[in-house]
Amino acid sequence: MNPMNPWNQFTPELVSDLYELTMAASYFREGMSGEATFSLFIRKYPPGRSYFVAAGLEHLVDLVTDFRFQEDSIRFLASTGKFSAGFLHHLRNLRFTGSIRALPEGTIFFADEPLLEVTAPIIESQIIETLAINVLQLETLLASKAARCVHAARGHGLIDFSLRRTHGVDAGLKAARAGYLTGFAGTSNVLAGKVYSIPIFGTMAHSYITSFDHELDAFRAFSRAFPDSTVLLIDTYDTLSGARKAVQVAREMAAQGRRLRGVRLDSGDLAALSLEVRRILDEAGLNEVQILASGSLDEFKIQALLEAGSAIDTFAVGTHLGVSADAPYFDIAYKLVEYRDRPVLKLSSGKRTWVGRKQIYRRCDDQGMMLEDRLCLAHEECAGGEGLLEEVVRGGERVRPAESLETIRARFEREFRRLPEACKDLRSPTLHPVHISRALQDLEEKTARKIRREELGD
Amino acid sequence: MNPMNPWNQFTPELVSDLYELTMAASYFREGMSGEATFSLFIRKYPPGRSYFVAAGLEHLVDLVTDFRFQEDSIRFLASTGKFSAGFLHHLRNLRFTGSIRALPEGTIFFADEPLLEVTAPIIESQIIETLAINVLQLETLLASKAARCVHAARGHGLIDFSLRRTHGVDAGLKAARAGYLTGFAGTSNVLAGKVYSIPIFGTMAHSYITSFDHELDAFRAFSRAFPDSTVLLIDTYDTLSGARKAVQVAREMAAQGRRLRGVRLDSGDLAALSLEVRRILDEAGLNEVQILASGSLDEFKIQALLEAGSAIDTFAVGTHLGVSADAPYFDIAYKLVEYRDRPVLKLSSGKRTWVGRKQIYRRCDDQGMMLEDRLCLAHEECAGGEGLLEEVVRGGERVRPAESLETIRARFEREFRRLPEACKDLRSPTLHPVHISRALQDLEEKTARKIRREELGD
Repeated sequence: MNPMNPWNQFTPELVSDLYELTMAASYFREGMSGEATFSLFIRKYPPGRSYFVAAGLEHLVDLVTDFRFQEDSIRFLASTGKFSAGFLHHLRNLRFTGSIRALPEGTIFFADEPLLEVTAPIIESQIIETLAINVLQLETLLASKAARCVHAARGHGLIDFSLRRTHGVDAGLKAARAGYLTGFAGTSNVLAGKVYSIPIFGTMAHSYITSFDHELDAFRAFSRAFPDSTVLLIDTYDTLSGARKAVQVAREMAAQGRRLRGVRLDSGDLAALSLEVRRILDEAGLNEVQILASGSLDEFKIQALLEAGSAIDTFAVGTHLGVSADAPYFDIAYKLVEYRDRPVLKLSSGKRTWVGRKQIYRRCDDQGMMLEDRLCLAHEECAGGEGLLEEVVRGGERVRPAESLETIRARFEREFRRLPEACKDLRSPTLHPVHISRALQDLEEKTARKIRREELGD
Repeated sequence: MNPMNPWNQFTPELVSDLYELTMAASYFREGMSGEATFSLFIRKYPPGRSYFVAAGLEHLVDLVTDFRFQEDSIRFLASTGKFSAGFLHHLRNLRFTGSIRALPEGTIFFADEPLLEVTAPIIESQIIETLAINVLQLETLLASKAARCVHAARGHGLIDFSLRRTHGVDAGLKAARAGYLTGFAGTSNVLAGKVYSIPIFGTMAHSYITSFDHELDAFRAFSRAFPDSTVLLIDTYDTLSGARKAVQVAREMAAQGRRLRGVRLDSGDLAALSLEVRRILDEAGLNEVQILASGSLDEFKIQALLEAGSAIDTFAVGTHLGVSADAPYFDIAYKLVEYRDRPVLKLSSGKRTWVGRKQIYRRCDDQGMMLEDRLCLAHEECAGGEGLLEEVVRGGERVRPAESLETIRARFEREFRRLPEACKDLRSPTLHPVHISRALQDLEEKTARKIRREELGD
């Protein structure tokens, strides 16, 4: 293990806002060990959005079922002088012993619907708050963005090129995974290729071209090194001139029984250039040579390029996917909804939480297209078949093995087909109806009344 | 080492787009080992921005001076079938042997100015591209955002609360460090407290309040656990009612010789509420109790709250800092500018790169306020004292020890005072003039002419 590697310092138990620990210290001091249920949900859609894609659960479950304070972390906490020896001893032996119900990764869900509910003694369920939000928001954010690109691309190929501009390495890995989860062909990210077994793609940068005396020398050199996977970047000096040189190299390769795979455009009017490049390639009989486009692409540009009739086969999406540029965060929260069987609620203005343990039921039409959801109390008899939240952890242990990325990818593909087109519109989507059951509304109102009476004297 | 800890899988040498490795493989095959200089810079400002704060250098230097391919990484690359045994052997022995000139962290810089220049044999300087951009963009992005908050806060306290919604753990750590670097008092992020020795702050969430039968019980319990650092969250049910309960607890604490430190507002009309809460506290003689505000704050809201005459002492900034919400990425690039003493350039439309090794000179007035910058060739005699780019690595080794975060924080404080107020305006800043030296312009034009002649037949 390399001591200079900064990522080796990341210990999940300290991925925590300090208040998780100060609250836990107070719960400990007061002897509060009752069972608490927290609900993790997104309050509202960012502008232009209408659905979310659940992701990150398998990582979170790994972290929570293995949660423990290492000695080095305890030493750091002791050094702050904020915590009693008794509490630190309690942390040393702390494990997560509760249960987690959650939406499997790849599930489509909507505002106000819990992505996750955690039920455990309050110290355990409280202390994982920051970790749970951080892990689930990032992956759900990226999968939700990637889904929009998949929708816009209408079956054309997609590759993740985001690593250089993601917010750190963690985000870069998750962007590659989110892309693959939603149907991307792969990623440029080598580490993601290793960690997640995702196909990796890559050819050359402008620096490669400019390091040679001439563009043609660069093209030839690359085709020598990678005779079976050459994709030439043709916009370094002039895209059409580059395309003609690519034709020349393709012919030289053909003479040796090799085939040029593709060319990449990275600047300029991609729609117009792709058509001209396609014509140059086709006139040379290179109909099979693919055109890859990159350069500040996102779902909006992909849609516009396809509407403009461009001849692009594959879109490489970078920064805008990797930082979810139009919506770089969700209004996501992890809220206590029940403590010792008592429903709880905060009344803070503008921030509604639905009390109690809940379940989501989804109604679909004969073709399997989603019609509406119903948010119910978990113990309610709610028409509509299976609830969407599945138990994944019980007594601190997984109740099933981790799902493979391929399983999750297949689920997303299935789910996304069932989401009506109008809900997928990139700018003015229709909102999917989420109804609140009568019992849940009643409990909410009763709880709010009780609080107003007791706390505010109303 | 915990096998479930996903961050232990991060190996710096694979934080790479695949094309860094395919290019390197081709350079290796062609016997290209000439010295190449790459320049890392930001092309243009995001909307409403006018300066950047250099950050991330010390992390990058650690990673680069220690760069090596571990056996496990070589095995993965071999398994892809893309690389020759000879190249993999070359990678196994690869070290960074070149030099790095860079802006020290905390330096203010501007569009088009190199933040970093790397000179090394081309495989070495190419292969660190993705890592260099990822590390420097994230930290520079966050420090630049944090500086805006510091400017808006006009001397009021600031605390980083962003961890839960940053893009992963890496970003969360860097947000805490960026805040501290620019003058924040500290962070809620426990891991950042440990890793960077930054002061950590934190009290309670709404869940803490709602887990007790009554708000007053929660306040009292917390003051028992943390009698010397109690800050009460008072908006769970009603902010003013909460303030009155806080007064009651403050009196009970005073009877035991303790002092309530503060109250926190997290929702509603923060300006109006802070004034009413201040009045409630002052009327109870609690003039020393501080008011902390949180809840979707950013530089714009902080400015508006202060302009509205709010009584907030400290602002906790979360999500908007942690994801740099108004500008979640920079148009940052790492471009080859010279290979074997030959200046190089790409001509791709809309993406200008200044050729050659460069230096930045800054002119200030008698009071030390920044007047203008001049971007020159590195070997030019340019009036204006010391160049801003400093050599930090030579022959693959640090030429000076890593700077401490305190040193960097002091530099930022000094530098930021010298940036004119008009450049700091949050919405319509004046742009600081960056002049291009005649020699650099001439070399640029000469290089472009040569390329147009040779590549395009112009």
